Amino acid sequence: MRIGVVAPSAPVTEEVAARVTALVAADFPGAEIRFHPQCFERHHHFAGPDEVRAQAFLDVANDPDYDLLWFARGGYGSCRIAERVLGGLESPAGNKIYLGYSDAGYVLAGLYARGIGRQVHGPMPMDIRRSGGEEAVSRALRWAVSADSLSLEPLLRAGDKVVAFNITVFSQLLGTPLQPDLNDHVLMLEEVSEFMYRTDRSLFHITSNPGVRRAAGIRLGRCTDVPENDPDFGETEEEVVIHWCERSGIPYLGRCDIGHDADNKLVPFGTI
Amino acid sequence: MRIGVVAPSAPVTEEVAARVTALVAADFPGAEIRFHPQCFERHHHFAGPDEVRAQAFLDVANDPDYDLLWFARGGYGSCRIAERVLGGLESPAGNKIYLGYSDAGYVLAGLYARGIGRQVHGPMPMDIRRSGGEEAVSRALRWAVSADSLSLEPLLRAGDKVVAFNITVFSQLLGTPLQPDLNDHVLMLEEVSEFMYRTDRSLFHITSNPGVRRAAGIRLGRCTDVPENDPDFGETEEEVVIHWCERSGIPYLGRCDIGHDADNKLVPFGTI
Repeated sequence: MRIGVVAPSAPVTEEVAARVTALVAADFPGAEIRFHPQCFERHHHFAGPDEVRAQAFLDVANDPDYDLLWFARGGYGSCRIAERVLGGLESPAGNKIYLGYSDAGYVLAGLYARGIGRQVHGPMPMDIRRSGGEEAVSRALRWAVSADSLSLEPLLRAGDKVVAFNITVFSQLLGTPLQPDLNDHVLMLEEVSEFMYRTDRSLFHITSNPGVRRAAGIRLGRCTDVPENDPDFGETEEEVVIHWCERSGIPYLGRCDIGHDADNKLVPFGTI
Repeated sequence: MRIGVVAPSAPVTEEVAARVTALVAADFPGAEIRFHPQCFERHHHFAGPDEVRAQAFLDVANDPDYDLLWFARGGYGSCRIAERVLGGLESPAGNKIYLGYSDAGYVLAGLYARGIGRQVHGPMPMDIRRSGGEEAVSRALRWAVSADSLSLEPLLRAGDKVVAFNITVFSQLLGTPLQPDLNDHVLMLEEVSEFMYRTDRSLFHITSNPGVRRAAGIRLGRCTDVPENDPDFGETEEEVVIHWCERSGIPYLGRCDIGHDADNKLVPFGTI
């Protein structure tokens, strides 16, 4: 299992790379990991200019020696390179796992829409900085290296089609060429650091989309670090999702075990 | 000219209503204005529950005695009642002007998409609280009452098709039944209080939409109260818009005179 790390949004530090590399060396003897030097570049908000981030992604995705492309972290920026990346993929890109979440969702969605490789929502190297983060990173590696099913979101069932996204990210890719066909899919959603009225607005947008209305249902992960609103929004995240599911006729299927935290579980897109 | 004010998002105070009513009485003898009692209701984030806000809108829209429905203010909430409102409109709703901006954009878009009435981006009663706000409110009234063309966005040309929206609002209605056909339209956009990376993300979303790509071009209004980002985003709002216009092939047509401020000009949707 050869793992290549790239950073389509913001950079990581050498310290994060060293910690994750040490963890792999200590606990995953079957794996090799390499952080693309682009991960440490800085260009304003981003880990290098768009063309540098896109090229780093293609370096790893198109290299047949890599089995897994790991998004270094979230932030903002992968939507800016998604079109360039998807247009530059070659055949080795199809035999690869793409692992990440949050901002990575733009590219994961576009890959899934085109049937290129295997897209997986799950922890990223930067998560090692969270409390309990070593376990989060190890959880992702246990699935990647040894297909440990305990790493998976526990409600996944054989035959179910599933995708998982950050609410804002998913909202912002609707109607773009990155939007995947969600016919009969369970859509798992999570959010972080958004006012509840914004989550409500995103759910309006998501559940009003005709493609999303063909989904089998929505499951809600965790919505964390919600800023306080004045006045209080008056509904919890689950009440918001139930409201919009009822309005749109999309079944609400309950909670699921994903989120911007160390407990975040893996969700391979499609069927497991 | 009979004007009915409703509040599809957040409430206004009696003081705002009194000031605007006094201004109409003093300077616009040809006009009568009535604030629907719903404008002063409070329900968490909103000026009353969804059904109350929707009914107030329909009370005014379906009443043949009103010539103009004026959105009291922005905030958040009109997307929650848009479907209910659009489904409840009767024939008097077609002979009416709908005036507002910001959050009002959801309903204005849906009305324009269905060809119901005359939709106008422009100042709202709540703007009277801004510095220079009496002039903003008077500008809207001069156009409504006496068709004063000096109230209009100065770049509007006879025959041009135009719409105007807040960037976030427009992004969040894409792919929903509220999205209007923008074939050959100039799309005027403005923003307030959003981090530049969010404006960039919205522009990705907007310019990736196939319907928007059929627009004649984009004009950029003012983006105000942009919170400081760390690190700095590295691009101004105009650079962001030019970037995405170049990427998407949508012509960038320059700036325009709209925004969340007292100088905000009127933009009737469609042709003037």
